[in-house]
Amino acid sequence: MTLSKKPVTGMKDILPEEMEIRDYVIGVIKDTYKKFGFTPMETPCVEHLANLNSKQGGENEKLIFKIMKRGEKLKLEEAKEENDLADSGLRYDLTVPLVRFYSQNSNDLPSPFKALQIGPVWRADRPQRGRYRQFYQCDIDILGEASNLAEIELILATTTTLGKLGFHNFQIKINDRRILKAMASYSGFSEEDYDSVFITLDKMDKIGVEGVAAELEENGYAKEIVDKYLGLFDGIGKAENGLLYLYETLGDALEESVKTGLKEIIDSVSATKSSDFTLVFDPTLVRGMSYYTGTIFEIAMPELGIACGGGGRYDGMIEKFTGKSVPACGFSIGFERIVLLLLESGFKVPAQNKKIAYLIEKGVASDKLCDIIAEAQEVRKDGTQVLVARMNKNKKFQKETLTAQGYEEFKEFFAR
Amino acid sequence: MTLSKKPVTGMKDILPEEMEIRDYVIGVIKDTYKKFGFTPMETPCVEHLANLNSKQGGENEKLIFKIMKRGEKLKLEEAKEENDLADSGLRYDLTVPLVRFYSQNSNDLPSPFKALQIGPVWRADRPQRGRYRQFYQCDIDILGEASNLAEIELILATTTTLGKLGFHNFQIKINDRRILKAMASYSGFSEEDYDSVFITLDKMDKIGVEGVAAELEENGYAKEIVDKYLGLFDGIGKAENGLLYLYETLGDALEESVKTGLKEIIDSVSATKSSDFTLVFDPTLVRGMSYYTGTIFEIAMPELGIACGGGGRYDGMIEKFTGKSVPACGFSIGFERIVLLLLESGFKVPAQNKKIAYLIEKGVASDKLCDIIAEAQEVRKDGTQVLVARMNKNKKFQKETLTAQGYEEFKEFFAR
Repeated sequence: MTLSKKPVTGMKDILPEEMEIRDYVIGVIKDTYKKFGFTPMETPCVEHLANLNSKQGGENEKLIFKIMKRGEKLKLEEAKEENDLADSGLRYDLTVPLVRFYSQNSNDLPSPFKALQIGPVWRADRPQRGRYRQFYQCDIDILGEASNLAEIELILATTTTLGKLGFHNFQIKINDRRILKAMASYSGFSEEDYDSVFITLDKMDKIGVEGVAAELEENGYAKEIVDKYLGLFDGIGKAENGLLYLYETLGDALEESVKTGLKEIIDSVSATKSSDFTLVFDPTLVRGMSYYTGTIFEIAMPELGIACGGGGRYDGMIEKFTGKSVPACGFSIGFERIVLLLLESGFKVPAQNKKIAYLIEKGVASDKLCDIIAEAQEVRKDGTQVLVARMNKNKKFQKETLTAQGYEEFKEFFAR
Repeated sequence: MTLSKKPVTGMKDILPEEMEIRDYVIGVIKDTYKKFGFTPMETPCVEHLANLNSKQGGENEKLIFKIMKRGEKLKLEEAKEENDLADSGLRYDLTVPLVRFYSQNSNDLPSPFKALQIGPVWRADRPQRGRYRQFYQCDIDILGEASNLAEIELILATTTTLGKLGFHNFQIKINDRRILKAMASYSGFSEEDYDSVFITLDKMDKIGVEGVAAELEENGYAKEIVDKYLGLFDGIGKAENGLLYLYETLGDALEESVKTGLKEIIDSVSATKSSDFTLVFDPTLVRGMSYYTGTIFEIAMPELGIACGGGGRYDGMIEKFTGKSVPACGFSIGFERIVLLLLESGFKVPAQNKKIAYLIEKGVASDKLCDIIAEAQEVRKDGTQVLVARMNKNKKFQKETLTAQGYEEFKEFFAR
């Protein structure tokens, strides 16, 4: 029987070269986040379908890989629709499982709880270059911290990590869902239209102001509302300090605590950052997920046209599981994009230990083999990496391959 | 809507305390295996159902979590059986995916290829204490090495790792499927009965020689065959050197290369081992998987009645994918059992960095907050872990909790 050699559609094998970079990135991430007091934790990859379908995941809920019920529970004849056959699925993000985890275990966790998660998630997206159906996410979240200390620590920890990974001159864009709403309200949109307006606004960087104006009018909004709304963005752009201009213009339409909270985040982070980036207020930043309730932020890399991570405050979500309100805020690094950027830049993981290869000709006697292995064991003690391998017929090619893998010294042992 | 707080049946959340130990164990494993020249790699958690059901997995094939087809591919009305609805599933081990990986990527891999894999696998077993439906496996494999250098390196790498994790005085049991067969053949069993005979022999440690004799006779085997068979085990037990006794008794029923090969493994490992264990020939060792073709081995811990890992040679498996024969040998550490042993022994991960908590009273002014965070950023530079958190109302309890988490120093900042 011949079997399938390729990975399943849309997923990929990770070869040693990429794996070395992934392990390095994970190491830097864990080390750095731990310094900020984040503690690693893990949830199962499989989650209740009811939790996954709880309207927290937006479009992702359409992309769930569902796992079939088993044994007596699977009633094939009686099944009328997909969901009769499945009651669990692969997680599409790390946030929904984290909230379930916290609801289940909060008595055994410190308050606030600073969670660090790195692990695979699955989405049955249409496969395309650089996007796979299994990919790693890397999230930090602070649960139980209502003040903006959460945002400040999340942004500092994430940007310090990016700096340690060699990224410079990037941007963190920040906005607040309450500012988005206040701007819409001030302009005259009614509350039930906000989501639709924000979907259009989110396209600003692709279609420009004119495109946004055209789409809003196409969607039936009055020209004077649209003009007033876009006038706000124009004013922000022209002002010396866009945030202050907006605060003055909106006046009481925006709560005082939101104003001071956001300003404090920007001032504190800018004054204490330990890596090379700018934190900028971006009134067009929307972030797709409907669960966000306050600040939202996003990483913009100059090398990329797209976001390389993001997050925000989602104070309402834990209440859906527990009935008890717990403030929550998180920041997710685009792990796969960072690995891709490093791979494409030709990044090499800093060598830690010396690498030696022992090549043993076939026919070496037992006692000599024993001596060679004993020597390798001795050399390994100081951390040196010693590969013990049979000498191939094509020794030249073997040594070339090993050199490419980083072996810098060879020792050859012959049968006589 | 209230959602499910518990993990799905049979799977578990991993809390920070256990996670710290898991991360530590993974770190030691990776560091040690790398010194032996093993290179990390990864396959998707999802695998073709046809590969999973290729008769390599024995009983595990009954325990597969199947993933439903999606969209147009899912034809619910036409489906007559489970497999009409699914064409992929969660991997139940790391060996079948490794073999697929090697078949697909061998042109880009060194020869021999020394693979290191750590990751979750899934089996829909009946949940019981300490056994979960998602659990981590940790495998090393050498593909493309026909000689017993593979076995020697696998056993040395695995035992060195166990030593570094603090395990002493354990046993590695070793046997060879060809010895098992030669013993059965010598005694008069016919080849089609071997599998059934070995299933009974595998129970030796539970039901003893009498139990094995009774079960074999119950299964219809002639008393003289059973007597001759069990006489061999008796002879091995009484001999000064069981292996040599067996070699002499079996004579030509066992190939010379098998004899010298196994002896060389035992001698080389015993002479060069770097941790405290004994490598012993165990003629009753069977290992369930039918894919093994040569040596088989198992880790026995004095603290446990059960195996804590195992492996062996499976030279025929890659040929099923590629049609091309490639020798293969692997060793799997029982990752979850090792973590459980460490947890139960009260093991504490060696502290690496100092841990300080900054507690900030509510109402601290913006500029003061900024100074505190700047100080934390400065202190973090030498590797110190600094938690910046709001001071809770119950400060005493907060400090107790943090002390339990390893914070050894506190600094308090008040509003005035």
